[in-house]
Amino acid sequence: MDVFNAIRTRRTIRDFTDAPVSDAVLHKILQAARWAPSSSNTQPWHFIAVRDADTIKRLGEICTQGSFIGKSQVAIAVVMGETRRPQLDAGRALQQMELVAWSEGLGTCFVGIRGEQQDEVKSLLGIPEDMELITVLPFGYRIMREPGTGTPRKPMSEITHGEKFGQALTFAD
Amino acid sequence: MDVFNAIRTRRTIRDFTDAPVSDAVLHKILQAARWAPSSSNTQPWHFIAVRDADTIKRLGEICTQGSFIGKSQVAIAVVMGETRRPQLDAGRALQQMELVAWSEGLGTCFVGIRGEQQDEVKSLLGIPEDMELITVLPFGYRIMREPGTGTPRKPMSEITHGEKFGQALTFAD
Repeated sequence: MDVFNAIRTRRTIRDFTDAPVSDAVLHKILQAARWAPSSSNTQPWHFIAVRDADTIKRLGEICTQGSFIGKSQVAIAVVMGETRRPQLDAGRALQQMELVAWSEGLGTCFVGIRGEQQDEVKSLLGIPEDMELITVLPFGYRIMREPGTGTPRKPMSEITHGEKFGQALTFAD
Repeated sequence: MDVFNAIRTRRTIRDFTDAPVSDAVLHKILQAARWAPSSSNTQPWHFIAVRDADTIKRLGEICTQGSFIGKSQVAIAVVMGETRRPQLDAGRALQQMELVAWSEGLGTCFVGIRGEQQDEVKSLLGIPEDMELITVLPFGYRIMREPGTGTPRKPMSEITHGEKFGQALTFAD
């Protein structure tokens, strides 16, 4: 799938079919993460791929903001080691994962994990205490909602500026 | 360009040709940012597109870690408003910008901006004090280094884990 088309059509997905995700597709998603840029190329990330049905169910129970994890076929926990910009580097890696997954017919949704839930997920997945758990991304073949129900975006003019903040950005062509 | 191919071939670029970047291409890059997902769809971002040669030169002087900004055709300052995960959301938006730029023949490089430089860039671009300046991304048509000189990646086995942290992730197919 074309990059721009993938970015334009991508939606956040919380409903997944029962179709299994092959190892080949999982491998592509993880490669996309691995090839992301990071601060000083430190590659400070770890990705825990969870395919065990019981563990996936348990993750859905723990992460109350993302109970739909329990319906996914594979969940990938994103964990950062000591680094200067853990959130930013994680964001770059997970966006590459999401786009490749989308191009393969899958979908995902970022799940925020709060205080106590952090401890529970870290315990469940054996994540070292000194590492930062960013999210658990559920993946599965997507069930799309009705067309046209994507989340709206602010108009371009509201988020872009030309030369200085507050000045309109104009396009000649 | 295919998503996976763009992700696989993308390199960090610090050398740009003198070829101008059309408004149409700049618009596509900004659309890619606009369509990125964000925490609770808050879209907390602002993008200041700088095309004025003098301002670009000055940005290259201020940002000593990214003096190559001065050689770019357009620089986009990424600025975040009040939000829960500014760095993560910014990472997602800028990765989408980078991939679309790459598919158009352009390149970029993340530039970290330190304390005093932050103040200078914010002053130069009129960025409100209470907003967070994440980076200034330089864009231009890329001059590639010799093939094979991309930054190496850790082996897959070092950054991936199966079911639990520390357990090998194996692929059957």
